[in-house]
Amino acid sequence: MKNIIVGQSGGPTAVINSSLLGVYKTAKDRGADKVYGMVHGIKGLLDRNIVDLSTCFKTNLDTDLLKRTPSSFLGSCRYKLPDIEGNEDTYEKIFKILNELDICAFFYIGGNDSMDTITKLSDYGIQIKSHIRFIGVPKTIDNDLAITDHTPGYGSAAKYIAATTKEIIRDGRVYDYPVVSVIEVMGRNAGWLTAAAALSEGEDCEGVDAIYLPEIVFDVDKFLENVGNLLKKDRSIVIAVSEGVKVADGRYVCELADHVDYVDAFGHKQLAGTARYLASKIDEKYGIKTRAIELSSLQRCASHIMSRVDMTEAFNAGGAAVKAAFEGLTGHVITLKRVSDDPYMCITEPADVHFVANVEKKVPLEWITDDGANVKPELVHYIMPLIQAEIAPLWINGLPRHIRLMTKSTIK
Amino acid sequence: MKNIIVGQSGGPTAVINSSLLGVYKTAKDRGADKVYGMVHGIKGLLDRNIVDLSTCFKTNLDTDLLKRTPSSFLGSCRYKLPDIEGNEDTYEKIFKILNELDICAFFYIGGNDSMDTITKLSDYGIQIKSHIRFIGVPKTIDNDLAITDHTPGYGSAAKYIAATTKEIIRDGRVYDYPVVSVIEVMGRNAGWLTAAAALSEGEDCEGVDAIYLPEIVFDVDKFLENVGNLLKKDRSIVIAVSEGVKVADGRYVCELADHVDYVDAFGHKQLAGTARYLASKIDEKYGIKTRAIELSSLQRCASHIMSRVDMTEAFNAGGAAVKAAFEGLTGHVITLKRVSDDPYMCITEPADVHFVANVEKKVPLEWITDDGANVKPELVHYIMPLIQAEIAPLWINGLPRHIRLMTKSTIK
Repeated sequence: MKNIIVGQSGGPTAVINSSLLGVYKTAKDRGADKVYGMVHGIKGLLDRNIVDLSTCFKTNLDTDLLKRTPSSFLGSCRYKLPDIEGNEDTYEKIFKILNELDICAFFYIGGNDSMDTITKLSDYGIQIKSHIRFIGVPKTIDNDLAITDHTPGYGSAAKYIAATTKEIIRDGRVYDYPVVSVIEVMGRNAGWLTAAAALSEGEDCEGVDAIYLPEIVFDVDKFLENVGNLLKKDRSIVIAVSEGVKVADGRYVCELADHVDYVDAFGHKQLAGTARYLASKIDEKYGIKTRAIELSSLQRCASHIMSRVDMTEAFNAGGAAVKAAFEGLTGHVITLKRVSDDPYMCITEPADVHFVANVEKKVPLEWITDDGANVKPELVHYIMPLIQAEIAPLWINGLPRHIRLMTKSTIK
Repeated sequence: MKNIIVGQSGGPTAVINSSLLGVYKTAKDRGADKVYGMVHGIKGLLDRNIVDLSTCFKTNLDTDLLKRTPSSFLGSCRYKLPDIEGNEDTYEKIFKILNELDICAFFYIGGNDSMDTITKLSDYGIQIKSHIRFIGVPKTIDNDLAITDHTPGYGSAAKYIAATTKEIIRDGRVYDYPVVSVIEVMGRNAGWLTAAAALSEGEDCEGVDAIYLPEIVFDVDKFLENVGNLLKKDRSIVIAVSEGVKVADGRYVCELADHVDYVDAFGHKQLAGTARYLASKIDEKYGIKTRAIELSSLQRCASHIMSRVDMTEAFNAGGAAVKAAFEGLTGHVITLKRVSDDPYMCITEPADVHFVANVEKKVPLEWITDDGANVKPELVHYIMPLIQAEIAPLWINGLPRHIRLMTKSTIK
């Protein structure tokens, strides 16, 4: 049996390291010799920044900490491979390194952009008749991957958003005067994360009063009118709004006020300030107290609130990727298939990566209310199983314990 | 035995309801007949918005949920009692209501401003020879009360800040390019909360790279110079900065960019935007990726991360207040006295409320490094015992369960 290599790419999730563990343990169980890790993804591979993972995980405590550690243990990158045609030298270099390391399978844990990497590498591999297999492991808090029922990472982010929204709702009712809290949730083009705020409603909680997703064109005047109507019924209004909401002319709401000053390597604008802008408009129109709350990067790194369902599925997706590769597949990504709703049951299934890469799955419009200011029960029903059950942090000296990569690359 | 009444005032904490429970249970155990709750503090009392707490807490599950519920169960207010002289009618009205309800003791859970209420009511009570006793129960995430070693509420907020800072630090290292994350922490004049970010450093975490407290005059140029030096040593820099930092001319740092558009009933400016302003200055000077993270109201309402030490002390402070009143004291506030550092032991002690009201306790300058950009180990040593041990949420259907006030006021 030969060696395998695994990398993590794109934005992290609370459970991306569970997928890493799923790859590591399953590969070891199935007889892989070395399990290498690319440090900072494909970019690290090109720089020969590679570690032998068995030197990182020496005890069961290490692997248990890995499951509970936020951010990508191996580091990440946003490096996009160039098209094969005209850039064969990059591909030759990658395959040269992989062959030197005696790699039989390559695993990449990531989202849309990372699946583009798997597509290109497997295409090139087939072209040059390489024996190396390339399998993607899905990961994104955004839940915007095609084919798969949902993505590992989404359930934990949704749980964090729903749980903190509940706390914000309680907090917002503490005084007897009107307060409008606007919670800004991640999600550039897909509203899955913002929709999770709807889970806050229950026997013990009023829930949010409105939810605005990027799937629907945002109208600032209609928004303000809705806030006015809501304020007639209750003193504390809590609204969840996606960072990616856009007005009719295509501008992001946050662009109406702030300038956008950062564009990432994939050409994505970095958004922030939507909640603040809307809160200031509410203040301006109604002269009442507002609060703008950005859930910020905690949505993707708050591993102290993890969904055990999500963690298990993340691990299983990693494991299924190894199984698929070892059984001969390449150019595939592992998807999650919901086989039963009640009780919830979900299995993994490999799918052709070409159908997943660079495709964004948005919230279906039929799951959004007609006024575009809330989500329907179907959407809550879809998300609810994904946030179930918990995995407690390992609390050491009052704080959650993590594990970090201390080994320096020794592969040259 | 007669009745007692309890209210909650000012901003909530994660454990303010544990103090409420401490008052309720101890009063019941010591033979109080009715335990009334003021809905929205003294303002609610004046409006005769009062509930019988035994109608709210019917089972042990209810009281267990109460300990885990964020925000003030009874609601809060920021209403400041006027001076006694010239406003005797207000005081007459309050005592009339208290006498009608056959109240023998009045408890107010709150911070500096709330202790002002206890001071005035007990002063007036002595003046008119009332038998009613007035005792304050300390509460504030800000930890800025005089005399007491620390305040209930601070430990849980500090634990939340330290835990999330650890997660932000891990997240900030995910890419291989330079990133500066500026975390904005609550604290208008006292840096206790911001200092808690220092607890993130440990065997498994690099810790924050700089900490700026409001006790030290802030110098934007020196700050930027420090960031530049830090970037020479590491690619990911995480800085904790208090929302209350001010430049030499007395302006808040956030005022250098944003306008302040809200002043609360106590004349406190509502601050936000410090991190964003500083992040934009870093971006401007160094042209690198920055992240501005406001921990926002989650610092005071994230009851899913609670310090059990804090919760127990909050409960004990409530109980000690009842004991003090029932033993004849009035015009006192319960303080926490650290009797041993290692092992940590802390007892309650009543103190004259006149020495606590309207006084702010700041971080001692000898606990801040000479360059004003970090805290010394003595401060970490002081905070560490306060964040110890946990109390898990009651997770129901994937989310922390809370309890809310459903009873309408029936006392007229």
